[in-house]
Amino acid sequence: MVLSPRPETQFMKSSIGIQTFFEPRGVVIAGATRTPGFGYGIPLMLKRLGWGDRLHLVNPSGGEMHGMKVYREVGEVPDPVDLAVVIVPAAAVPGVLEEIGRRGIRHVVIESAGFAETGEEGREIQARAKKEAGKFGIRIIGPNCVGVLNNSNQFATVEVIDEALNPGPIAIIAQSGVFGNVLLDNLCQRRMYISKAVTLGNRMDVNECEVLDYLGDDPDTKAIMMYLEGAADGALLRETLKRVTRKKPVLILKSGRTGAGRAATASHTGSLSGEDELYDAVFAQTGAVRARTLEELLEMTRVFSTQPLPGGNRLGIVTSSGSLGALATDVAVDEGLVLPELSRATVENVRRAAPKWMNVKNPLDVGPSGQYTRAFPALMEDPAIDMVIAVTIIPFAVVRTLKPTGITGKMWFGDIAEIRKRTPQKPLVVCAVGNTEFIEQMAEVSGDEVPVLTSPETAARSLAELWKYSRWVNG
Amino acid sequence: MVLSPRPETQFMKSSIGIQTFFEPRGVVIAGATRTPGFGYGIPLMLKRLGWGDRLHLVNPSGGEMHGMKVYREVGEVPDPVDLAVVIVPAAAVPGVLEEIGRRGIRHVVIESAGFAETGEEGREIQARAKKEAGKFGIRIIGPNCVGVLNNSNQFATVEVIDEALNPGPIAIIAQSGVFGNVLLDNLCQRRMYISKAVTLGNRMDVNECEVLDYLGDDPDTKAIMMYLEGAADGALLRETLKRVTRKKPVLILKSGRTGAGRAATASHTGSLSGEDELYDAVFAQTGAVRARTLEELLEMTRVFSTQPLPGGNRLGIVTSSGSLGALATDVAVDEGLVLPELSRATVENVRRAAPKWMNVKNPLDVGPSGQYTRAFPALMEDPAIDMVIAVTIIPFAVVRTLKPTGITGKMWFGDIAEIRKRTPQKPLVVCAVGNTEFIEQMAEVSGDEVPVLTSPETAARSLAELWKYSRWVNG
Repeated sequence: MVLSPRPETQFMKSSIGIQTFFEPRGVVIAGATRTPGFGYGIPLMLKRLGWGDRLHLVNPSGGEMHGMKVYREVGEVPDPVDLAVVIVPAAAVPGVLEEIGRRGIRHVVIESAGFAETGEEGREIQARAKKEAGKFGIRIIGPNCVGVLNNSNQFATVEVIDEALNPGPIAIIAQSGVFGNVLLDNLCQRRMYISKAVTLGNRMDVNECEVLDYLGDDPDTKAIMMYLEGAADGALLRETLKRVTRKKPVLILKSGRTGAGRAATASHTGSLSGEDELYDAVFAQTGAVRARTLEELLEMTRVFSTQPLPGGNRLGIVTSSGSLGALATDVAVDEGLVLPELSRATVENVRRAAPKWMNVKNPLDVGPSGQYTRAFPALMEDPAIDMVIAVTIIPFAVVRTLKPTGITGKMWFGDIAEIRKRTPQKPLVVCAVGNTEFIEQMAEVSGDEVPVLTSPETAARSLAELWKYSRWVNG
Repeated sequence: MVLSPRPETQFMKSSIGIQTFFEPRGVVIAGATRTPGFGYGIPLMLKRLGWGDRLHLVNPSGGEMHGMKVYREVGEVPDPVDLAVVIVPAAAVPGVLEEIGRRGIRHVVIESAGFAETGEEGREIQARAKKEAGKFGIRIIGPNCVGVLNNSNQFATVEVIDEALNPGPIAIIAQSGVFGNVLLDNLCQRRMYISKAVTLGNRMDVNECEVLDYLGDDPDTKAIMMYLEGAADGALLRETLKRVTRKKPVLILKSGRTGAGRAATASHTGSLSGEDELYDAVFAQTGAVRARTLEELLEMTRVFSTQPLPGGNRLGIVTSSGSLGALATDVAVDEGLVLPELSRATVENVRRAAPKWMNVKNPLDVGPSGQYTRAFPALMEDPAIDMVIAVTIIPFAVVRTLKPTGITGKMWFGDIAEIRKRTPQKPLVVCAVGNTEFIEQMAEVSGDEVPVLTSPETAARSLAELWKYSRWVNG
């Protein structure tokens, strides 16, 4: 495999690890400002997160800001300090790196843009910055990024909404800062919470491989979600993925698939995308899960971070809509799952109470029989079934009509969270389509351990990928 | 092409059209009930919709219901009446059809299940019902469906939420009743409104082809969305689509793609699905647009029902996130669009105010330059560009910070609804990702004529399909 990395994106073989980026003892903000922007917001946020006594602001103007002293240069900042966040204009960065190096700080997040992603002049500045960092052995995340978020110690070099600060099992690796930020905005609304997040920008030094290894060993991280525009080093990525996916799933959305897409990313974070087929091969060889769309990346990660690995590829579908059952079935079979016959005991159990018109088979379409609460647990407990999709839909006019009578989604579809607890070894995904209020009701009934997806196709594909990953891990 | 239709799904060559299903003068409900269910809810809803004086309830028990007289049999119902909605158990349907035929009613929606979709016995009942209908020349929608919705006269044989009763340009053809219902629940939340909807169930008589022709000529319908488990008659579908797609777009989601999927649909609405490749060929030959997922069906229909046809395949992308721009670019190029260079005037115009780090090219990633409001209209007006995707994202922490200062999405991204009005001939899709509150703000700013999608991939694919359809119509 030949993916020629450009010199400035090659992994700088430093002996200093990257843990300090996530767990600094003290932080200096080089480029704190009194006007809106990163230099204004980040100090405020860190103070709010309890980092006030470990936070040092630097701006040549000195004085005071947010009730804190502002140092005129990095050299004046008191101990302990082992991480610098740099927000000064690109042209000033090499000089600031020298100050930082002299101060003995060895970890730097450069958030400023205006480097290799912008053309010749920026490339030249990036080269000078790299040289300066090299002199002192400084490790760098960025430039052109928003750095890190660590929810275990509530440390962040990026302003995020409070909801994104809830700790959870998912780690994010992104290249672009704003994209990483927007993922955080969106994930918490899906009840998906984050362990650590990092945006890598131009990857002047630290790249996705080193971060993958770090997150692979992070006890707070259960699944890793990565957006990649191009590998910094293809061969290294392959070796790293092989290692990390043995420990936990890595789900990847890769752009730059087409020539035009590659051209778009080259000027965005200054990376070269490789040929798409190479990436497909690398991901297939390493147990990485490739998402085909942003929505798939988010939803598949939700399934991977909540569901156990299946013991086999036999899918059972219980549904109140034959159509949605058929849509899920198509994708499941396309992706390598099978829909076996239900075991005799299950068929007999369900048939006993079913109306004559109901077909007791797989997918199990209960229609308006009122038998969902019987059929669903029967499917979960069926030894012929390794995993289940429960399609729970009901016209919202019916929901509204039944509301005053006290009939709820739980009575109609069962206590899904409880059913989950009774059969914890089998992956379960709920698929609900329709009115948002109903979907939210189903999310309530399903609890935190059962993902409720709105796409039958993604529900099926997620379980198929979970099965493939299960074979990788256990194979 | 050979898709052997089963005898009971063949188009019954009747001289009576289907308009009466949507515009009856009077309706009889055979199987009105005092307990919750279709027989209870549908009369209530029709009364609420103003059909009280054209509505007649029938139940052998007679008496009164919802403040209305209940007739003991269909024969007693007064004029005018030209449509019957049948909700009695399957076994009773042939007898009720005889009553209906004798009463001179020639249009019947059979909502009951328990026919060909359930096996041998049901097939036999369906055959008897068909024979009975044949005696009188009765046209039938169903069985195993929820019939029709017509928002131009507020007539419906199905209970829907009030929000779904807003008239709009989109027509729905579905097979399954509950699925059609749930589409209605969901579409209104996307600000997609309906002209007419029909669910066909087992298609004992009326099939999708006759409905397509009817909707093709319906002045209230601008785009047709169809969910199909299998064609009732493949050759007829091909001829019908060719004719109808010349008048308006037809977007199709087809399940039963795999063997298991076909088995699922056979027992669901009693239809046989043909081979998937045949359908791909039919759709390609007829200008029909095939959606690959339910979500694509909904979002592509949104774009088709709001956007003009593009004059060419040259896509311009303006974005505040390089990553999302790259994801859209990949799909656009895969699907046959090109991202040309911007014209010299546009480049000069944008460059004049742009910071040095900003690359003025296509896709146009403005980053945090504050130049979105200048770049976006410039792209819309560029003669080198036939259609535009505007990716509008911004970290929600920034949105919250700026809110008290009065800076809104409109100031950041421009008055999108107004920009749309200035260049009405070019398709425009906005893509917003992140926090729901922000996405809703963007929907407000974009107005009713610009769809806001949350998937960059679907935004790109929708425009690519719009271009292909444009060539079909004008080719």
